[in-house]
Amino acid sequence: MTKFKGFAMKRLNEVGWVEKEKPKCGRRDAIVKPLALSPCTSDIHTVWEGAIGDRRDMILGHEAVGIVDTVGEDVVDIKPGDKVIVPAITPDWEDEAAQRGFSSQTTQPLGGWKFSNFKDGVFGEYFHVNLADANLAKLPEGMKPEAAVMLSDMFSTGMMGAENAKIKLGASVAVIGIGPVGLSAVGGAALLGAGRIFAVGTRPNCVKVAKEYGATDIISYKEGEIDEQIREATDGEGVDAVIIAGGNMDVWPQAVKMAKAGSVISNVNYLSGADVVPLPREAWGCGMANIDIATGLCPGGKVRMERLASLVQHGRIDPESLVTHKFNGLDKVEDALMLMKDKPRDLIKPVVLIDE
Amino acid sequence: MTKFKGFAMKRLNEVGWVEKEKPKCGRRDAIVKPLALSPCTSDIHTVWEGAIGDRRDMILGHEAVGIVDTVGEDVVDIKPGDKVIVPAITPDWEDEAAQRGFSSQTTQPLGGWKFSNFKDGVFGEYFHVNLADANLAKLPEGMKPEAAVMLSDMFSTGMMGAENAKIKLGASVAVIGIGPVGLSAVGGAALLGAGRIFAVGTRPNCVKVAKEYGATDIISYKEGEIDEQIREATDGEGVDAVIIAGGNMDVWPQAVKMAKAGSVISNVNYLSGADVVPLPREAWGCGMANIDIATGLCPGGKVRMERLASLVQHGRIDPESLVTHKFNGLDKVEDALMLMKDKPRDLIKPVVLIDE
Amino acid sequence: MTKFKGFAMKRLNEVGWVEKEKPKCGRRDAIVKPLALSPCTSDIHTVWEGAIGDRRDMILGHEAVGIVDTVGEDVVDIKPGDKVIVPAITPDWEDEAAQRGFSSQTTQPLGGWKFSNFKDGVFGEYFHVNLADANLAKLPEGMKPEAAVMLSDMFSTGMMGAENAKIKLGASVAVIGIGPVGLSAVGGAALLGAGRIFAVGTRPNCVKVAKEYGATDIISYKEGEIDEQIREATDGEGVDAVIIAGGNMDVWPQAVKMAKAGSVISNVNYLSGADVVPLPREAWGCGMANIDIATGLCPGGKVRMERLASLVQHGRIDPESLVTHKFNGLDKVEDALMLMKDKPRDLIKPVVLIDE
Amino acid sequence: MTKFKGFAMKRLNEVGWVEKEKPKCGRRDAIVKPLALSPCTSDIHTVWEGAIGDRRDMILGHEAVGIVDTVGEDVVDIKPGDKVIVPAITPDWEDEAAQRGFSSQTTQPLGGWKFSNFKDGVFGEYFHVNLADANLAKLPEGMKPEAAVMLSDMFSTGMMGAENAKIKLGASVAVIGIGPVGLSAVGGAALLGAGRIFAVGTRPNCVKVAKEYGATDIISYKEGEIDEQIREATDGEGVDAVIIAGGNMDVWPQAVKMAKAGSVISNVNYLSGADVVPLPREAWGCGMANIDIATGLCPGGKVRMERLASLVQHGRIDPESLVTHKFNGLDKVEDALMLMKDKPRDLIKPVVLIDE
Repeated sequence: MTKFKGFAMKRLNEVGWVEKEKPKCGRRDAIVKPLALSPCTSDIHTVWEGAIGDRRDMILGHEAVGIVDTVGEDVVDIKPGDKVIVPAITPDWEDEAAQRGFSSQTTQPLGGWKFSNFKDGVFGEYFHVNLADANLAKLPEGMKPEAAVMLSDMFSTGMMGAENAKIKLGASVAVIGIGPVGLSAVGGAALLGAGRIFAVGTRPNCVKVAKEYGATDIISYKEGEIDEQIREATDGEGVDAVIIAGGNMDVWPQAVKMAKAGSVISNVNYLSGADVVPLPREAWGCGMANIDIATGLCPGGKVRMERLASLVQHGRIDPESLVTHKFNGLDKVEDALMLMKDKPRDLIKPVVLIDE
Repeated sequence: MTKFKGFAMKRLNEVGWVEKEKPKCGRRDAIVKPLALSPCTSDIHTVWEGAIGDRRDMILGHEAVGIVDTVGEDVVDIKPGDKVIVPAITPDWEDEAAQRGFSSQTTQPLGGWKFSNFKDGVFGEYFHVNLADANLAKLPEGMKPEAAVMLSDMFSTGMMGAENAKIKLGASVAVIGIGPVGLSAVGGAALLGAGRIFAVGTRPNCVKVAKEYGATDIISYKEGEIDEQIREATDGEGVDAVIIAGGNMDVWPQAVKMAKAGSVISNVNYLSGADVVPLPREAWGCGMANIDIATGLCPGGKVRMERLASLVQHGRIDPESLVTHKFNGLDKVEDALMLMKDKPRDLIKPVVLIDE
Repeated sequence: MTKFKGFAMKRLNEVGWVEKEKPKCGRRDAIVKPLALSPCTSDIHTVWEGAIGDRRDMILGHEAVGIVDTVGEDVVDIKPGDKVIVPAITPDWEDEAAQRGFSSQTTQPLGGWKFSNFKDGVFGEYFHVNLADANLAKLPEGMKPEAAVMLSDMFSTGMMGAENAKIKLGASVAVIGIGPVGLSAVGGAALLGAGRIFAVGTRPNCVKVAKEYGATDIISYKEGEIDEQIREATDGEGVDAVIIAGGNMDVWPQAVKMAKAGSVISNVNYLSGADVVPLPREAWGCGMANIDIATGLCPGGKVRMERLASLVQHGRIDPESLVTHKFNGLDKVEDALMLMKDKPRDLIKPVVLIDE
Repeated sequence: MTKFKGFAMKRLNEVGWVEKEKPKCGRRDAIVKPLALSPCTSDIHTVWEGAIGDRRDMILGHEAVGIVDTVGEDVVDIKPGDKVIVPAITPDWEDEAAQRGFSSQTTQPLGGWKFSNFKDGVFGEYFHVNLADANLAKLPEGMKPEAAVMLSDMFSTGMMGAENAKIKLGASVAVIGIGPVGLSAVGGAALLGAGRIFAVGTRPNCVKVAKEYGATDIISYKEGEIDEQIREATDGEGVDAVIIAGGNMDVWPQAVKMAKAGSVISNVNYLSGADVVPLPREAWGCGMANIDIATGLCPGGKVRMERLASLVQHGRIDPESLVTHKFNGLDKVEDALMLMKDKPRDLIKPVVLIDE
């Protein structure tokens, strides 16, 4: 077989199935068939907001667990038949940005992000992975694909938000937005030693998982300004760290206002909807309040996936709690994506399972 | 009342009750009465190993929760009647070492450690605390004194071991020794995001709490060299961090041998029994294997206690699991200390509770 | 003598001499007489921009070297007659913010800044210093007061800008603004291991000192967009760190545009002139480009001053290069301040010397 | 030509010229001809101390600047004819250790060190470099090969010693040993913001360069215990960082004794001569004095070389000061090596220049 089908962005605002040539496998690369896929809000941004500009007939998707079909001749550790966790970000590890410590930014800004950006994504019968040995992690014995697929982007991005927030043992954290990335940030904050964790959100399903993942206080924007609620709950002190994992530009002034002098605001949200991110000068201490701002793109690569998998294997956190909807069969990836677009109130993340 | 009694080191190898003048309260200090006390292995080292040299009629003990009796005229936040967690280490916060970031080492090496070292400890009807506002944390509503007293030294020291080990999310850790400090290190490692945690020890009570606190693998030195067991369990890789929380000098070569190239060995053990700490040259990569060694003295002060208390309040970890033996009445502090000296196999930590 | 005079903000937009009661010396404090004073742009902001709101008859100034007149009874290391470097920021070292590692933010946001903010500043015959032992550094033998007074705020603030920028050995840095703080940031960047240093500014005096302090490339905003010039000079790469030490809000988009994916923007500028600090969403990688933003308030205290003095004593950098105008006699502080307000083209910093 | 000659370790304690097949160039690799070579003390350890065990007919040398002869078909940035700085350490950037942040330890402990360890070194007419794009840095226009060859190992290793020592701006440092690595550590300490720098050594040539590179105090072991001298010079305080760059195992207790409570001891010395590195228990505060120990292997790769080169290009430090002896012609590499073995008193480093 040399042709295969995939679910693609046909052009801005239009999706559909396409047929493509099976991708060529470079010497260090792999061709993988999906076992579990999950659409991401980024796919929605890509198609319906033009977040990365126009793309034609580009297969969507960057969250996958799969089974290796073919490997290039220089691949050593990965073999056909291996079940693997595929990170959303697959860095060029020899690039200077990786040598500088920023593997997500290799070859160009955000350049570690290749699937459904520079090349076809994972929503196809086959997909191509660069640097198989460096970027694919073996699916641990006994780990369910629908759980593991949450590591590719959701856990890696959300937990990066907590890592960048430089949480000290017992410190207080607020997480704004409890979609799947925000929930992963809540989990990350708890895993990294936070004491009190405020989770800002309202959907019952999300609130439930937020608590499971370690949130101690739920804040609803419907009950007033969230920064005021958090200030009040902390006797005016504010929190040691804020993780922005949702909301529009309006959450930035709120984030600064709920942050202590001496704290970090860590962003994991794809920012859209305005050209300027508005930092409130005065609440920011006129630039002198020791409130730092951290950003980043989802860390990728084999070691990242292995370490996140280790958290799951050892019972630290259960990624499957994020999965509210399951589908069977690659053709259902369309339904799953539209579900992500429509965001019904009970949705956290859908997963599509594909038989071997 | 101007006289009070306390349980003291009378001289090397001898303990007993003494009567003393009630301590004078400096302007910024407090006089506190104990509500919960716990003896520490350090007290044993002090009396029966001469760890800090000779001392005469020095009241022992540095782990306490208490109720404030008197405060100096410059004390603002702490008031008589307040129930407080007393850290074992009470730094001089204005000292240059604190300004440099090493508050446990103020005024001299290990100088933050005052109780039962430079001055009378907490095993008396009254004890003196320097810098009450900076060093005393209020006991949170609903927290039991027997739980909170574990924060003074055990949690603060053990968790420092994990903090200094620079554990990355999902990394592997080995904790050598699972007495109360080692168990706190296990808990700290889990709280700071470790994936797999090897706990080295054999006492059933300790093993049980190690698992509760997050250990995933129990290693017994009775079943072979511990470094070999851990190497084998990790396919030869070794671990990302080793925390030394017990054992004699022989564990140092083992610690280095179980550590990956690129890892940290973090010591929280009071080292004794030999003049030299033996690092194995070859396993240490002839000094080039990127295996760093971190040390420290228990962090003290109000904020440290508050943050550890926050972990407890928010259900991250239960310090009371360390408490295997409870006594009632100050006079029982002698029994508790002798228990610590004798170390029966079912002991983790004894606590003495004193009525208000 | 119980009355003394000082040069004050009488109200918004008005300065003048006032007569006050000699300040009371707390037990741990000192009363100091000035030997060298320097006005700061902050004084200008305070009086003519209302940066900290209204103040009445508040003596201005926070940069001083002095001679100790009186010390409180609990002061140990500092004695009357000692010549001392007075930091602009005099933290409350026992406060929780200091224990958290943010000594400039003690008791409230920016609360380490007391002189000419919460209390009378240093432009008087006498001034009060809180926590003499912790906040005053002895003037090293042979160091000129006009040099040392540059450490109080200029060096401490500017070099913090470089410290916060997390410069790696040999990395590239751009410093926007080369007034006295920006020049100190240039010097700090060089001292911390930067390779190429772009300094953005045009005044000949400043350019000369920028080169002396380590700038390798001078960029003028008169010759085009500064980010474009720096991108071009670096073959499109941009720089590893940007320090914002001047300019209005318009430099923020430029700073982001000249920063590499994987870099830090470090602010040391007092931000004014608009309510919002505008981060450019797209150049910032939609919040995912690993471009962090660091802020802070000038670090203070004894150890900071001693360490900066050590740099001077050991010939690493010469603070006197910042001093372009010298005056003699306290009464000249008015001229010096007006010079700072008028900013003649040849001005970097004025200093007023006062005989003992 | 398919045969070439090189200067080799023939077996333990024996060196000589060998003839070999020209190395095969992998797809991502390069074959390089030397322009400048420098022998290292490690070469001496290898041959005459058996530091890495027996080796037969292995070409020696790992410090080189060269001109590219051939590149593999997947090499993009490097072309035949390019003049390049060759790092002593050439990591496997895709390996898990590099992903963990320890690129010198890829594939096995110390595995980034390949030249004259796992494969032929650079003392031949040709040598092989793995991952040309990732590991070779172009020699900047105008930089002399005899200067640049000091970056491969001496600067990279010595400056790592300073980087690992976590020197704060204005902190005090002691560097034990002022051979070429120790001098680079002195230079690194100055470049990273040290104030006072003690350099321990006696050779006049080395002392001269130590001062040029930033040492402020020269300490001779001939005038008493070095820790006592440094304690005395610092009023008993000790230093904030110690870099061990020479000496035998006896310097370890001295290093600990001259270190403050709250400091770092950073090793860059290849340790030999005893099986155990002896840390003095008591001076180390029984493991509680917050005196950390850092180790590492020379950082390699393109970005490291470029950044060190940037320091040179921008006049921060002159590597040529290390070069005391120059030779011309590849055949002189033997003389240069024997010079390194004999260590005449005026030697710092010899360089062999080879015409293109």
